[in-house]
Amino acid sequence: MREVSIIGIGVTPVGEFWEASLRGLAGEAVSAALADSGLEAVDALYVGNTLGGALNGQQHLGPLLADYTGLRGIESYTLEAGEASGGAALRTAWLAVASGAVESALVLGVEKVTDTVGPERAAALMNLLDADYEAVHGATPPALAALLMRLYMDAHAVALDQFEGFSLNAHANGSRNPRAMFRNLLKPGAFAKAPAVAPPVTLFDAAPEADGAAALVLVPAERAADLAARPVRVAGSAVATDALALGERADPLFFSAVNRSAGRAYAQSGITPEDVDLLELHDSYTIVTTLALEAAGFAARGVGWRLAADGQIGLEGRLPISTFGGLKARGNPLGATGVFQAVEAVLQLRGEAGENQVSDARIAVIQSLGGLAATAVTHVLMA
Amino acid sequence: MREVSIIGIGVTPVGEFWEASLRGLAGEAVSAALADSGLEAVDALYVGNTLGGALNGQQHLGPLLADYTGLRGIESYTLEAGEASGGAALRTAWLAVASGAVESALVLGVEKVTDTVGPERAAALMNLLDADYEAVHGATPPALAALLMRLYMDAHAVALDQFEGFSLNAHANGSRNPRAMFRNLLKPGAFAKAPAVAPPVTLFDAAPEADGAAALVLVPAERAADLAARPVRVAGSAVATDALALGERADPLFFSAVNRSAGRAYAQSGITPEDVDLLELHDSYTIVTTLALEAAGFAARGVGWRLAADGQIGLEGRLPISTFGGLKARGNPLGATGVFQAVEAVLQLRGEAGENQVSDARIAVIQSLGGLAATAVTHVLMA
Repeated sequence: MREVSIIGIGVTPVGEFWEASLRGLAGEAVSAALADSGLEAVDALYVGNTLGGALNGQQHLGPLLADYTGLRGIESYTLEAGEASGGAALRTAWLAVASGAVESALVLGVEKVTDTVGPERAAALMNLLDADYEAVHGATPPALAALLMRLYMDAHAVALDQFEGFSLNAHANGSRNPRAMFRNLLKPGAFAKAPAVAPPVTLFDAAPEADGAAALVLVPAERAADLAARPVRVAGSAVATDALALGERADPLFFSAVNRSAGRAYAQSGITPEDVDLLELHDSYTIVTTLALEAAGFAARGVGWRLAADGQIGLEGRLPISTFGGLKARGNPLGATGVFQAVEAVLQLRGEAGENQVSDARIAVIQSLGGLAATAVTHVLMA
Repeated sequence: MREVSIIGIGVTPVGEFWEASLRGLAGEAVSAALADSGLEAVDALYVGNTLGGALNGQQHLGPLLADYTGLRGIESYTLEAGEASGGAALRTAWLAVASGAVESALVLGVEKVTDTVGPERAAALMNLLDADYEAVHGATPPALAALLMRLYMDAHAVALDQFEGFSLNAHANGSRNPRAMFRNLLKPGAFAKAPAVAPPVTLFDAAPEADGAAALVLVPAERAADLAARPVRVAGSAVATDALALGERADPLFFSAVNRSAGRAYAQSGITPEDVDLLELHDSYTIVTTLALEAAGFAARGVGWRLAADGQIGLEGRLPISTFGGLKARGNPLGATGVFQAVEAVLQLRGEAGENQVSDARIAVIQSLGGLAATAVTHVLMA
């Protein structure tokens, strides 16, 4: 198995872009990533996208986007794993380059969701739940997150405002990211009092669905040194799943897919949680952040929320998370989110993160989750 | 790169199964493939599916189907490339096992489309076209096939009834396949006179959309010899694309994606078209069959239709195609079709094809196409 490195990155801003198209966003990110890599073409393009069929009337994105981005003819198809689609696309590109079958690959995450609002978008998002055991009962993603949060608060005697630090941190980091959807700071104390989305989940807890695209260029590590000044090595890659329906899980308060995919990626790259300089995680809700931190070995069960309360997750903290604002403030372009996480981690490891730079960042972990961690994709990146 | 072999196969029948569910069909195929392989579990499950979101309200199939098939927790996600989704799933599983990242993988193709009829199903299928340049004008898959057929008939002075042999062959082979959707023989002369779907495409030309699931188990070749009496080696694997919109292509009558993916798969496996003992191709329309045969090197341009007229494509012919009925008679379960093709090729190479057996079959080529060959996935299988 060959070592694989990232030598190019490109992103669009994240937000509500009513005058942009899915293919236009894709083209912008791919052009930027190719320019950054110095390559003019690649052998393959792996596309992470979730709701193209449901909201854009557009599937079969491989040939469409290879052509639109100036790469007509190359290998290309779509990876779908709910909101972890971007992570699945990176996983597939890594497999392709590591195997020796492909010499250079683009990973593209792209999503265009904000042209549709209200019940139609809500229905599309319910496609990502278990149709027969969740969606049929009217369950929605925020409602399920709310159930999980309530369960956790009861089990561990945690108050709602004790999750606040995660959102404060995300907005603080997002305020310095010119591509973030939300650049405002949250006022301490506002979190628990914000309008309810699905009690106890509030508006300042749930991440916003957004438009955006991000891209990466991967090549064998042995070639990367000649092509890039600061290649970033993909040192670990792992995917695990759990029951899709929350009610079917052995223990809903333990994200077993996160635990297993993180464990495998750590072992592959020879690290432990203590070695991690920054973590880009799937902060779709603060309860998801909390449970992901616990399952990935950064906190014991029942105390993950304390990392936020103790202020350890800031750019200067022991474990910086969501360093460019995370899903909460940078925004959550669903199938593109996992690729945004990778781009942000690469910026950190290259030392190009500007005002968001984590000092001396050498090892980054990125966690791309689908739903409430039914799918968990973990990658370890090293400078 | 490790050599990879197929050691297990499983399929459901193909047809309109109004009392079956998507997950139920998946479970049936996976159970059969695991039983056939002798393995009780695998490391990963790669799912080919196209219209789960549009017609079943169900995406994020990886965790759902891993769990439902008794494999809760393993790596799993969805590959989508229109009707070539099954081919893309096989490609991904091959990459995973060849790379060394995964020791055993299931490929699952599954589709449940017949619960929805009329405009809603037609609209879902239009998701697979270019939304901005085809679907927006009201183009449908059969209408585009009709344009292509008319162009070919004009360019090469071919009459409609000269394509008939492809459908006669498909139904002849399907009549011996207990899992085929259509087991009736077509009467010679009926093809051109059948009700028009989109002139010149008739009812006896277009393949039927169907429900069904098929699965494969892949392991490294070095392990396969210990596990299976007749492992089948995946000797070549390649994906190529073309512009999605037919009108954007340099030459609509040349399937360049087929040409490039076939060329690469032949080179990888060290074969030429003359070496091929049977070909499972994407006979969604006879014009697609014709152009695919030409682009893959089995006929010169403008004369691919003659293979049918000359009777060379039967089980005893020089180049048997659609040996279990193809899309036309076995039926076309969209994202599952590419996996059905692989299962059928494995049956031939094992010598287990029963009444459909091609004598002394050693080398099979399978072509999984998305749309009018916007995506082409070619695999070479060897006994």
